[in-house]
Amino acid sequence: MTGLSRRSLLTHTAGLGVAALMGAQARANAPISGHQAPGFYRFKLGDYEVTILNDGARTFPLPDTWVTNVAKDQALGAAGEAFMPAGKVTVPFNPTLINTGSKLVLIDAGNGPSPDGAVGLLFPNLAAAGIKPEDIDVLVLSHLHPDHINGIRTADGGIAFPNAEIIAPEPEWAFWMSDDNMAKATTPIDKNYFVNTRKILGGLNDRVGRYSWDKEVAPGITAIATPGHTPGHTSFAIASGNSRMLVQSDVTNIPELFLRNPDWHVAYDHDPDMAQQTRHRFYDMAATEKMLVAGYHFSFPSAGHVEKAGAGYRLVPVAWSAAL
Amino acid sequence: MTGLSRRSLLTHTAGLGVAALMGAQARANAPISGHQAPGFYRFKLGDYEVTILNDGARTFPLPDTWVTNVAKDQALGAAGEAFMPAGKVTVPFNPTLINTGSKLVLIDAGNGPSPDGAVGLLFPNLAAAGIKPEDIDVLVLSHLHPDHINGIRTADGGIAFPNAEIIAPEPEWAFWMSDDNMAKATTPIDKNYFVNTRKILGGLNDRVGRYSWDKEVAPGITAIATPGHTPGHTSFAIASGNSRMLVQSDVTNIPELFLRNPDWHVAYDHDPDMAQQTRHRFYDMAATEKMLVAGYHFSFPSAGHVEKAGAGYRLVPVAWSAAL
Repeated sequence: MTGLSRRSLLTHTAGLGVAALMGAQARANAPISGHQAPGFYRFKLGDYEVTILNDGARTFPLPDTWVTNVAKDQALGAAGEAFMPAGKVTVPFNPTLINTGSKLVLIDAGNGPSPDGAVGLLFPNLAAAGIKPEDIDVLVLSHLHPDHINGIRTADGGIAFPNAEIIAPEPEWAFWMSDDNMAKATTPIDKNYFVNTRKILGGLNDRVGRYSWDKEVAPGITAIATPGHTPGHTSFAIASGNSRMLVQSDVTNIPELFLRNPDWHVAYDHDPDMAQQTRHRFYDMAATEKMLVAGYHFSFPSAGHVEKAGAGYRLVPVAWSAAL
Repeated sequence: MTGLSRRSLLTHTAGLGVAALMGAQARANAPISGHQAPGFYRFKLGDYEVTILNDGARTFPLPDTWVTNVAKDQALGAAGEAFMPAGKVTVPFNPTLINTGSKLVLIDAGNGPSPDGAVGLLFPNLAAAGIKPEDIDVLVLSHLHPDHINGIRTADGGIAFPNAEIIAPEPEWAFWMSDDNMAKATTPIDKNYFVNTRKILGGLNDRVGRYSWDKEVAPGITAIATPGHTPGHTSFAIASGNSRMLVQSDVTNIPELFLRNPDWHVAYDHDPDMAQQTRHRFYDMAATEKMLVAGYHFSFPSAGHVEKAGAGYRLVPVAWSAAL
């Protein structure tokens, strides 16, 4: 075999060659585009149509205490194994839309308008998918953290989904909207969450309905208790015909760290031990039953199967299909 | 923790509930769409802009001899671990487009027009990405198998990329266009390849240029010898500034089988032992150097990093980024 040596490869990829420098005086027939493809991905689930919608992502230097119960170097090691940028982690955000035929149901509302444009992409991606915010029949909130609820509000403070029934988990609403609980909050993260729920949901007590665990929130979409991340954190089982899937919400934050290492605690967990217990039970089931799982913080298109891998789990992303 | 038991989960996902049956009489605000997102994905590589373009995929029952040197059950086991449909494999096709600023370079032309619509999606996906076929400055063929060259021809037999310089690897052209070699072909697969090269490339001896290994085929894009899959099979090292990547072409067919198990031979390999040797050398380097690799038969968006895993390798797909 000629050509394929390490030295040859590194030489070829070390930088621009002579031809490149010469070629730089010409211009390609098409300019550099700078535009990404729209971030939505569709698949059939029985008679239902599921659309994963990307709300963007944030990449940031790993804070010292982001993974609260392991050394920072260990957390960075896992990020490095996932080829994240050196010293950083990337957290994507991906709401799930389900058209049951009778209801257009959006699970979680994304981060809402953002000055830097890194998030809030749910709205342009909905448009690219042919959906108007006023088409949404039901907006189901999995829990009341900012990246799941702030998209409820338009930039001018209106309701972004004017025709939607908006519903939140009853225990989640009770916890975060309690002024007693707010007064007892000790961590800066939780204090911020209490302030944000009031900013976004204040005055909406009569506009936002409450749902209970183990009940359908919409046709074929059942609320499953997965508390720990927050007191009322909820996942969803979706069923149509013989097909089914799970929408896990935040049972893990990014799978590269917390699915691979289900005993690691992310700083956003309200009750880390309960969250850890929930993770194991949820993924033991998902792996055993080979169920498709959509994860809010999985890389877009944010759905895959879970396999056991050592003491943790590994995500096997769905294979992109152009055909529905 | 309430709610999350295996029995509860299975009950919830066993089928449509009462509410679903009731809801079926209503209609959602938006109809079932049936449309997938366009299959292109962009990223920057130094000053270059890379666009992966999906040409579709084919899913078919695994033939008995698709993996020639392991038992069919073993091959199906690997497909099952990748959650492919039972008894089947899915093979996607993904050409790579590179805009160097001075040249718009397409590597491989896809399957071309297809009556069933499963492949040939390069053209609608180019359009979605804002590129016209006549914008392509250089079409580089990695090798002369049908799924890489048939897209050269329009449905009426014209040249689909009228303004492109079209170039093929010199040893690849010499091998497949030799009538002596055609007369000596023994397997039905190779005989078909000889017929197809004549159907697609016949009469184009003066239209299609030849390139040599270890030389740039376009600015910053160097042809790397990776023979075995075919006699002139070529991969590409792409470099811009300090950034670099590899376009592997068919060093493996689908990674779920042949990257995980680099000693397995796909029926399409002309010299399976040489192809196996090439795989090991290519991936040992790619893993050691942590290089980004685009693979024609990797699931869209068809780029990722390669890590060593046991006796083989595992693909870590790129994390989708809305920002370029």
